[in-house]
Amino acid sequence: MDFLIHVDQTSGVALHRQIYDSIRGAILSGRLRSGEKLPSTRALSKTLGIARATVTMSFDSLLSEGYIEASVGAGTFVSRALPEELMRPAVQSIDPASLEVITPKVKARIRGRKRKDGSEPGSSGEASSAGDPDKVQGYRLSWYATALRSRQWLNFSAEEPAVQLSFGRPAMTEFPMRVWNQLLLHHARKRNLGILDSPANAAGFMPLREQLAAYLSRVRAVACQPEQVIIVNGSQQGIDLVARVLIDRGDDVCIEDPGYIGAQKAFEGQGANVLPIPVDKQGIVVEAMKEREIIQPGFSPQLIYVTPSHQSPTGVVLSVPRRLELISFARRVGAYIVEDDYDSEYRYKGRPIPALAGLDHAGTVVYIGTLSKVLFPSLRLGYLVVPLDLAEVFTRAKWLADRHSPLLEQQVLCDFIRLGHLERHVRRMRNLYDQKRKLVIESLKQHFGSAATVLGDAAGINVVVRIASVLNDHEIVERAKAAGIGISSTAHCYLSQPPRGEFQINYAHLKEEAIDMCIEKLAEIAL
Amino acid sequence: MDFLIHVDQTSGVALHRQIYDSIRGAILSGRLRSGEKLPSTRALSKTLGIARATVTMSFDSLLSEGYIEASVGAGTFVSRALPEELMRPAVQSIDPASLEVITPKVKARIRGRKRKDGSEPGSSGEASSAGDPDKVQGYRLSWYATALRSRQWLNFSAEEPAVQLSFGRPAMTEFPMRVWNQLLLHHARKRNLGILDSPANAAGFMPLREQLAAYLSRVRAVACQPEQVIIVNGSQQGIDLVARVLIDRGDDVCIEDPGYIGAQKAFEGQGANVLPIPVDKQGIVVEAMKEREIIQPGFSPQLIYVTPSHQSPTGVVLSVPRRLELISFARRVGAYIVEDDYDSEYRYKGRPIPALAGLDHAGTVVYIGTLSKVLFPSLRLGYLVVPLDLAEVFTRAKWLADRHSPLLEQQVLCDFIRLGHLERHVRRMRNLYDQKRKLVIESLKQHFGSAATVLGDAAGINVVVRIASVLNDHEIVERAKAAGIGISSTAHCYLSQPPRGEFQINYAHLKEEAIDMCIEKLAEIAL
Repeated sequence: MDFLIHVDQTSGVALHRQIYDSIRGAILSGRLRSGEKLPSTRALSKTLGIARATVTMSFDSLLSEGYIEASVGAGTFVSRALPEELMRPAVQSIDPASLEVITPKVKARIRGRKRKDGSEPGSSGEASSAGDPDKVQGYRLSWYATALRSRQWLNFSAEEPAVQLSFGRPAMTEFPMRVWNQLLLHHARKRNLGILDSPANAAGFMPLREQLAAYLSRVRAVACQPEQVIIVNGSQQGIDLVARVLIDRGDDVCIEDPGYIGAQKAFEGQGANVLPIPVDKQGIVVEAMKEREIIQPGFSPQLIYVTPSHQSPTGVVLSVPRRLELISFARRVGAYIVEDDYDSEYRYKGRPIPALAGLDHAGTVVYIGTLSKVLFPSLRLGYLVVPLDLAEVFTRAKWLADRHSPLLEQQVLCDFIRLGHLERHVRRMRNLYDQKRKLVIESLKQHFGSAATVLGDAAGINVVVRIASVLNDHEIVERAKAAGIGISSTAHCYLSQPPRGEFQINYAHLKEEAIDMCIEKLAEIAL
Repeated sequence: MDFLIHVDQTSGVALHRQIYDSIRGAILSGRLRSGEKLPSTRALSKTLGIARATVTMSFDSLLSEGYIEASVGAGTFVSRALPEELMRPAVQSIDPASLEVITPKVKARIRGRKRKDGSEPGSSGEASSAGDPDKVQGYRLSWYATALRSRQWLNFSAEEPAVQLSFGRPAMTEFPMRVWNQLLLHHARKRNLGILDSPANAAGFMPLREQLAAYLSRVRAVACQPEQVIIVNGSQQGIDLVARVLIDRGDDVCIEDPGYIGAQKAFEGQGANVLPIPVDKQGIVVEAMKEREIIQPGFSPQLIYVTPSHQSPTGVVLSVPRRLELISFARRVGAYIVEDDYDSEYRYKGRPIPALAGLDHAGTVVYIGTLSKVLFPSLRLGYLVVPLDLAEVFTRAKWLADRHSPLLEQQVLCDFIRLGHLERHVRRMRNLYDQKRKLVIESLKQHFGSAATVLGDAAGINVVVRIASVLNDHEIVERAKAAGIGISSTAHCYLSQPPRGEFQINYAHLKEEAIDMCIEKLAEIAL
């Protein structure tokens, strides 16, 4: 045997394990070749000065795992079933070029192979991320993956600035975390670890679905049965499930322009033909879809995605006439309305407007609710309210996606709603955010004067401001960043030509004293 | 005005709210029609005996929400922008037939509309679930949804029997829940609610990814960087993401037959051409794929899905020669190997065999790890280890799917591994399960004798038993159910003709005394 078995009596690793490791290593690295004869256990025990039983133990393991094979009367051999090429040391290195050495034929074959549907996901005109997005080391990815790779992706900075205006985060210091943690511990202690592990419960913890159905009826005028409520991991999963269940490649999908990029990307990922519909002071311009109908007879979008409570990003609230017009249009052309009702809790002017899902009773609306912005973002819980006849297929889709959302947090949230904490918290926050909102508006008026126009301040936890500046958006963002302020222009939310100088100010999580300081600083930068 | 405004001074609801509610209700129910003139605030205040300012407040709300509109000098009117048809009372009822009344034209149009790709997801030959699976109330669903609806779905009973042998559940009473809960409370108390809310972190909490990379290197011989580890909500989400990123409609996908149904359904949902590959005592028969290559020149499956540590459901361990043969084959034909390494922790005979991901260094293997069967099923955490060049696209797919997995549980799990609890727990359980496993086998021998053959007892937390019985599978299941025992035949795991009398016995969660009782009962039933 031209390989060495290292045995170290003092190493603490059992001797039979050391022998096993040495022989296995020699086989896998190619030092011992397929079909090569091994010394007998007797010979090896003598050479190593180790009890024969110990050596036999190692051989038994190697035998049972198929590294070696015994031939009666002839001895023990390295398994002949081990493919030769895998034994070569080259394979052990992490050199990506090794693939090319091994499989030039395969690569050529794959190169010649065409997508079965002939379509080109990367052909949206946007810049490719790197090289051929369709191939990874000669392997082909799916159309979906290629769409994700080839299109421009969200590009957020990894560092967190001192003051962050870019994301809609709640005032986390105000969250009743003690109450939440008490409930968490209560349920953690008494948890029945087995429940929920069945496809029937993929839609979620039934008592929570009941609480949510009642909550929606109280605060959003949505009359639904608990069976229509599907618990998901935040609104993004809701959007993704909706995209998968409703959209096929090539389907027309209407979205708001500007709009929520997480939805746009999900629809594009499904291959939707995404149609940007303009937004005015009353929300999505239904008339624009009607005009399209004239130009394109038979126009029948598969779905229309809207954020009616607080349009993302402009903050416009969809007016009641527009709501009714939208429902009427959607029914007429056979489109689903997907109502992403984020930020519906915080409305400062007038009474809450009923959700589209509350105005419609014909199964036209799929409602997406989130609690991330009301509770805290790292809690991944949201819900869908789907027409009753879609509940089963959404439940199956949820099961296939990840079986179910984590149970413990569902139980905690259920109690949090049942005991009135949610509505109490929302009421408290509404007042607090209203004060902050007023401060933002005052402060903008003071420091920017007529150079700033505020939009979308009737609801939600941010406003949009249009700034008349000599600087371009990129310059403002960069200079703000240098001053420790994270701010994003809304340009990335537009599919059409974005306006200049439009920024989001998310104020909910800011301390009151930070608001004025920060806006003063921005004025110094921009004006 | 032919509608009544009900005002109740004692109700506790503010008067302006009562007026608002009455008028709004009248508009939405159609009692007040579009364009109809409202009384003046002065007149209404007189009629109702209420301060004019109160009435004005209600009108302002209705005005700002678009229910009514004011025309200078002419008075106030129900908004003309409200589409007439929505005002009809019929719409308020939840009568599904109402849609048909409203939109016969739409239905006809949709009926005439063909799927853009011309394919038929429901045409797999299996029975349709109900009516036309492609349509819901005249709306069309996606190909994916139709595939989910038309194919036979998993059919588990909602009631839980006294003894459940059907699901692979761990011995939950043995889980160190106190330790877990201490960590949970610790992190819950100090949680930084803001972190993880960015696309860069969709792949998960970096310290956990580092712990898992180190853990895999220790116990599975998988050398990977933390950047290759993507945290997901249990292995089902891992499978689903793999399906979405790697599979296009029409792609050949090889799966084990019998195999794991959750994977099969996910691949079918993506439109894969699922090819069942037989399993023998060494695991998936790679030779069968090679034979297919001869019959079908250019055969190049997109991926090969395997459960090598403990084949699902047979329990066979994929032998080392077969592993190497599989890797070699996959590389040659340009297929990804998807290694679902569930149950790898529990191996009773011989040493753990290195994972396929540990044997391959050329980016051929996507590894799926789960902790549900080691910790507890309602914890939804698992992970993928993907070739480095796929990490970015998987992270994007995860972001679109649900942004990220819940942070708190990731932090807890990270500490649980870091402090050695995971490996300690696995070692303890391995001994415990080994005892139970032996008991199952002894008990089967005692009560069934030669009428039972045990398979797949070298690893995992279940065995498969083939029973020679005069009864058919369905009769055995039903009689066991009547006796309080939940048992599933493996028939639903087969794409080919299933054998008769093959059942799974999941023993991990059973008390030792229950095991013998239960098997004795089954023998009484079956023999």
